[in-house]
Amino acid sequence: MTAPLTFEILHECSASSARVGRITTLHGSFETPVFMPVATAAAMKGVSVAQIESTSSRMILNNAYHLMLRPGAERIAHFGGSHEFMRWPHSMLTDSGGFQAWSMSDIVKLTEEGVQFRSFIDGSLIMLTPERSIEVQNLIGADIIMAFDDCPPSVSTATATDGEGDDDGAAEENASIARPSKKPRLTPEAHAARLIEAVDRTARWLERCKQAHRRPTEQSLFGIVQGGTNFELRARSAALTTAIDLPGYAIGGVAVGEGTDEIRRVVEFTAPLLPKDRPRYLMGVGYERDILAAVRAGVDMFDCVLPTRNGRKGYAFTRSGPVRLRNACHTADRAPLDETCDCICCAGGYSRGYLRHLFMAGESLGGTLVSVHNLRHFQRLMVDIRSAIRENAWSSLEREWPVLRPVEMPSAPTTTSVVETPYDQRI
Amino acid sequence: MTAPLTFEILHECSASSARVGRITTLHGSFETPVFMPVATAAAMKGVSVAQIESTSSRMILNNAYHLMLRPGAERIAHFGGSHEFMRWPHSMLTDSGGFQAWSMSDIVKLTEEGVQFRSFIDGSLIMLTPERSIEVQNLIGADIIMAFDDCPPSVSTATATDGEGDDDGAAEENASIARPSKKPRLTPEAHAARLIEAVDRTARWLERCKQAHRRPTEQSLFGIVQGGTNFELRARSAALTTAIDLPGYAIGGVAVGEGTDEIRRVVEFTAPLLPKDRPRYLMGVGYERDILAAVRAGVDMFDCVLPTRNGRKGYAFTRSGPVRLRNACHTADRAPLDETCDCICCAGGYSRGYLRHLFMAGESLGGTLVSVHNLRHFQRLMVDIRSAIRENAWSSLEREWPVLRPVEMPSAPTTTSVVETPYDQRI
Repeated sequence: MTAPLTFEILHECSASSARVGRITTLHGSFETPVFMPVATAAAMKGVSVAQIESTSSRMILNNAYHLMLRPGAERIAHFGGSHEFMRWPHSMLTDSGGFQAWSMSDIVKLTEEGVQFRSFIDGSLIMLTPERSIEVQNLIGADIIMAFDDCPPSVSTATATDGEGDDDGAAEENASIARPSKKPRLTPEAHAARLIEAVDRTARWLERCKQAHRRPTEQSLFGIVQGGTNFELRARSAALTTAIDLPGYAIGGVAVGEGTDEIRRVVEFTAPLLPKDRPRYLMGVGYERDILAAVRAGVDMFDCVLPTRNGRKGYAFTRSGPVRLRNACHTADRAPLDETCDCICCAGGYSRGYLRHLFMAGESLGGTLVSVHNLRHFQRLMVDIRSAIRENAWSSLEREWPVLRPVEMPSAPTTTSVVETPYDQRI
Repeated sequence: MTAPLTFEILHECSASSARVGRITTLHGSFETPVFMPVATAAAMKGVSVAQIESTSSRMILNNAYHLMLRPGAERIAHFGGSHEFMRWPHSMLTDSGGFQAWSMSDIVKLTEEGVQFRSFIDGSLIMLTPERSIEVQNLIGADIIMAFDDCPPSVSTATATDGEGDDDGAAEENASIARPSKKPRLTPEAHAARLIEAVDRTARWLERCKQAHRRPTEQSLFGIVQGGTNFELRARSAALTTAIDLPGYAIGGVAVGEGTDEIRRVVEFTAPLLPKDRPRYLMGVGYERDILAAVRAGVDMFDCVLPTRNGRKGYAFTRSGPVRLRNACHTADRAPLDETCDCICCAGGYSRGYLRHLFMAGESLGGTLVSVHNLRHFQRLMVDIRSAIRENAWSSLEREWPVLRPVEMPSAPTTTSVVETPYDQRI
């Protein structure tokens, strides 16, 4: 049996747990640490395949939850799988739908069998089990598929406000980084019991996922470590998860409302518990500094909707920090978003003044151009992070990427689910 | 003084007044008959410059009215003109703003001096005169600029319903093909008097436009023939307009609500009244059959928002007629929009089923892909029309483009300002 995924470690950092690696799937090869943009419904919002490719992204996400509900996993299989459906020739990953079932839907029933919820599209009753999630992902056909996990809200987000629904389509995309607070609040004791239950159930479900997987020679199943911000639970989840031999492991339940420091603390504790010779994937993270900290803790894979979600709203990422294009200061600005950037927006000669005009005039081209720039921003960051690992050049990385330097946030902790606050503050 | 525009006739049809020509501006050269897509606010809705170029469009429109109000003509000049502002390296044309001032704004006052109206953006009072319109167009810097004309509603549209505002941004774009009915209805006698006044004033204003033009070595001013559907007035307007020596002439006041037959009648009467050695431009037309009829009457230039406006709504043009992608019949369809098409959507392997999914899921990529296909559809039509002129091969043209064949419309006449009716009927 040929392995559908190989992972080679090309270089290990002498000063941290970071490593440069190479993942090869049946759809190509790319270096790690890798940033994977999100194409929720088999389409990246406002960005064409050629435009994604222009950012050198070679691995993207689809959301199994969305595709299962619309157009349906069986329909995508009819079209030859999502690679063929959306005409994406490179590597692809699907999440299991567990996170979205919890964050986007009204849960009707949670049992050992699975989760019953109402479709966010038409309110119909859907039953999602480990077996059905894997069947759905087998039908969609991504190179990496994720285990179906039990995702209880974390303590910090059980009380967080719901950051969704701020623009067209964002509610859907946000679901992969923000967890709403629709669920009833639990007492601290009940919450702790719930977390233990979720960790153990996730492990039992992982075994069922592995058994249900029908395309192991084409698709690689990754397990997910849960446990919230509790180190004991993280250790228990890591032990239970890695006891099952899989081609890769993910850290889930992070970036669901915690601050940068808490994300970092959990990742630095959990990453070393995962096998060194398998790719480690930190789900849904995040900002540049969060990625850098996780890379140094030994994480290899990242996904986040920030580049496209913020791009559509006129927020651009630059090396020196975010730029809010609607601000009046850009009205007559002939400069590009980022002088050093080689994306089709910056290298194409589009000025900040023109981009601001597009947002003020409601032209969707603005969102497209800034999304492409933001995607390239993260891909350039990963290129430079890989160089820093190879050359142990962390200080020059921070010199060239001022946005990576630690900043003192004025008041509330930065969270990846609330984007406007730090952005408005910082420009 | 170097002419900023040259027009060569390369081939004349033996069976009609059609001709193949070549227009050369300071930004390039292209063959006529030419179809010019519309980039209203210095951006084509949902379509990037690279995507426009992929359709082989080499001449586009900007709307001076929109740009004058936002971001302002002086601001565009600050950025080096619209070519530089929107990064369009090829040829460009601006309309004068007269049509939009009439169709999109509350006119406050019309005098011999000009038109005073309220901005559709913020309600501020704007005075537009021939001199100011030319100043605005000199600042924007297109290769061809249009005379500022007096545009009274035609008889047919003075009673037509307003087709605007049907989707985001469509109201602005529509203004170049549909005239609303906000103005008070006139008696037939008053309307006839108003049309004569408009024809004569348009001629006086044209003289003022020519005098005001400050960049005649870089930009070519075209005059516009008015006169509604009245042949006597059309003849009078053509005589007055062509008495002023200009590099090109346009037929205005067509495609503002008339049926195909009426458009054709007016164009066939008016086109021969324009000098044979100058480009003839039929403003705002239109559907494939309307273009074909006008080409045979000797028209060289066309613009229309249909490819992008319909594309955004999921209406695709094909050789055999329109396709409404939201229709359920496309759900499992693996076929491309048009088997014969070489656009990035059809040749890129996107299926009708995938495109339908994008529209059902609210993914803007659907509008982008179908807009690009539609633009390429019209450019391929122009390629084949130019071949038909060269080879006198009109019957094979109609064989390969069934959509060009005359059809009997069931009830009301087809109008270019009401797109849903024929589209819904024909699929």
